[in-house]
Amino acid sequence: MSTAILALKDEFPGIAGGWHYLDTAATAQKPQAVIDATVNALGRDYATVHRGVYARSAEMTLAFEAARRRTAAFLGGAEEEIVFTRGATEAINLVAQTWGVENLKAGDRILLSTLEHHSNIVPWQMLRERTGVAIDVCPLTADGRIDVDEAERILTPAHKLVALAHVSNVLGSVLDVRRAADLAHAAGALLLVDGCQAAPRIALDMAALDCDFYVFSAHKLYGPTGIGALWARKAILDAMPPWHGGGAMIDRVTFEKSTYAPAPQRFEAGTPMIVEALGMAAAMDWLSGIGLARAEQHERDLAARLRAELGKRNDVTLFGPEDSVGIVSFALDGVHPHDLGTILDEEGVAIRAGHHCAQPLMDHLGVPATARASFGLYSDDNDIEALLKGIERTRRIFG
Amino acid sequence: MSTAILALKDEFPGIAGGWHYLDTAATAQKPQAVIDATVNALGRDYATVHRGVYARSAEMTLAFEAARRRTAAFLGGAEEEIVFTRGATEAINLVAQTWGVENLKAGDRILLSTLEHHSNIVPWQMLRERTGVAIDVCPLTADGRIDVDEAERILTPAHKLVALAHVSNVLGSVLDVRRAADLAHAAGALLLVDGCQAAPRIALDMAALDCDFYVFSAHKLYGPTGIGALWARKAILDAMPPWHGGGAMIDRVTFEKSTYAPAPQRFEAGTPMIVEALGMAAAMDWLSGIGLARAEQHERDLAARLRAELGKRNDVTLFGPEDSVGIVSFALDGVHPHDLGTILDEEGVAIRAGHHCAQPLMDHLGVPATARASFGLYSDDNDIEALLKGIERTRRIFG
Repeated sequence: MSTAILALKDEFPGIAGGWHYLDTAATAQKPQAVIDATVNALGRDYATVHRGVYARSAEMTLAFEAARRRTAAFLGGAEEEIVFTRGATEAINLVAQTWGVENLKAGDRILLSTLEHHSNIVPWQMLRERTGVAIDVCPLTADGRIDVDEAERILTPAHKLVALAHVSNVLGSVLDVRRAADLAHAAGALLLVDGCQAAPRIALDMAALDCDFYVFSAHKLYGPTGIGALWARKAILDAMPPWHGGGAMIDRVTFEKSTYAPAPQRFEAGTPMIVEALGMAAAMDWLSGIGLARAEQHERDLAARLRAELGKRNDVTLFGPEDSVGIVSFALDGVHPHDLGTILDEEGVAIRAGHHCAQPLMDHLGVPATARASFGLYSDDNDIEALLKGIERTRRIFG
Repeated sequence: MSTAILALKDEFPGIAGGWHYLDTAATAQKPQAVIDATVNALGRDYATVHRGVYARSAEMTLAFEAARRRTAAFLGGAEEEIVFTRGATEAINLVAQTWGVENLKAGDRILLSTLEHHSNIVPWQMLRERTGVAIDVCPLTADGRIDVDEAERILTPAHKLVALAHVSNVLGSVLDVRRAADLAHAAGALLLVDGCQAAPRIALDMAALDCDFYVFSAHKLYGPTGIGALWARKAILDAMPPWHGGGAMIDRVTFEKSTYAPAPQRFEAGTPMIVEALGMAAAMDWLSGIGLARAEQHERDLAARLRAELGKRNDVTLFGPEDSVGIVSFALDGVHPHDLGTILDEEGVAIRAGHHCAQPLMDHLGVPATARASFGLYSDDNDIEALLKGIERTRRIFG
């Protein structure tokens, strides 16, 4: 095998010592730049935001709002379109419980797909319980993509929202977001995109994608836990009712009536994730410094190499399309994925084994779980070789 | 003045260089122990929780759940009674939108008080809009305490919830939580306590307080931003419906129907605040190492000293009771608090000037804003002296 495009392992204290970390789709390790930004924000530069009359707080407020602009630039959106959330899950719940409750009613329909993560299923089911909206499910192509042709056939004027993953967290398959947006809009629906697995791997441009909501989590983007963002078109965000009440999201409070701040502050009640926002901005700086085009190529190459190697084995079933990005799910005949994961762990190789928070997809694939290897920018051929050796050892153990 | 009880400034990189930080009620600076715990969790020990089949993830899961036990121990509760939230604001919204929506209806009443933080007002107003519940407001005593005698007169069988601050974030006044709990329970209501300002300053024991919900934010407790907790009695939490849908909070997902995990996991959708939970546990270890009894004495002493010094001036109005803990709000005749704050900032003294997210209390006090000095365990007499000098300088400037 050729050498990896990138050689970044030394920047990641989490994988020091030769650990073969292949669970980046669950969460990414953090570069030193993110850790350093966190240390400075927690220590030397620490202060609250938006409230202090002293210089340190004013500086932290500038840094915090710069992180919002950084996030907007990363997505190709505007800063007033960025709501900081705990992560993608909270962002989807926010949309469901504000935009959804305000705009959807019994008789309306939502279109999801078979491969969605639970975080893009359960919030809509909870909205269904509250409003009586119906949920349709777009099937997959034989090789594990969201079948957008089927989506076109399913969509009706009753559909008000389409909510799909940009990149499948199990299969690595990539959605043509622009086409999905065109189809949704033609039916009069909005498009929400779960970008958790795409944001670290594919250059984003909200205008080009033409979606209406985009969500992601920083911890999968080499950033901190506890933060992520919702991007929403300004006109949509401006019209959304508030969600959580509290400080910072209000204009004026009396016991008779309170009035609310404009978006995005209206959706950020309480002291925000100050340190995390700065850490996320550092992660975006780091990732953009490498370049998303290089990142995507790296992730496509590694996935293709692993698929090619696993494809040589007659005891491995590969899931997902050939051109998947960064994520490879597979089964080793006669070995439960958990057993494979446990043996690999003894070899210093960390994969994920389970349903990957995508039980409907597991039902579709006819398996209780898959083994999943997922790459990050620190991953390289050595990690693939270690995984292949570990699979071979597992084969010998299980016969 | 005598020397301070504690001498901890060296442990806090955020106040290196002699900065007189008197805005701890807004957010506390972080001891090195919390920063170190964060660095290790983000780097050397980083992994996801609850899902990995590899050792690092299993270890992180143990550490994360140990942080839950640490939080439970800090509060004198049980680990299954602890829900990690972004902070107190989210915790109150969670209670309002789950327990509140499930249990309250038009005709029911909620009792708040005049001194509540917006985070303990607006969520109930939003619940009022959704359910038609009514809100009553318990007045204050002349010296700025919640008038629990008045609460006793106000409470009726229509009251289902009493929600009060343990320590006022503006006045430093301390609620007799046990008496409030007894009164609430006698009326058939539950008691929610906003513990943001109490948790860093007063030893807590949920059994002794006998409240039903208790909330706080870690960033005011010398811990990270982006995390806090809801404590709720197990029977109450077990009966509460889910709030956010997503991964980790489910039992089984199909498109027809999803079933939910037991509490507290049911309330923690998505990848949690992993690093923040470990940082919060480190903060609790640090604070408990000093001892809450010493912390309270320190905070009472400093507040008393500042009140005594300010009381010598005939151009200062003091708000709040004599026995306030850690927080002193005041007005300097003829000087807007923002101007005072700005001049103090030039002297290296950081106070807060504003409504402190307590506009109804400002209305009650008849002021648009107060100046507020608030102490932490790193505060000492030097900080008070610097503040007094800055006030004197301000006096000379304004004449």
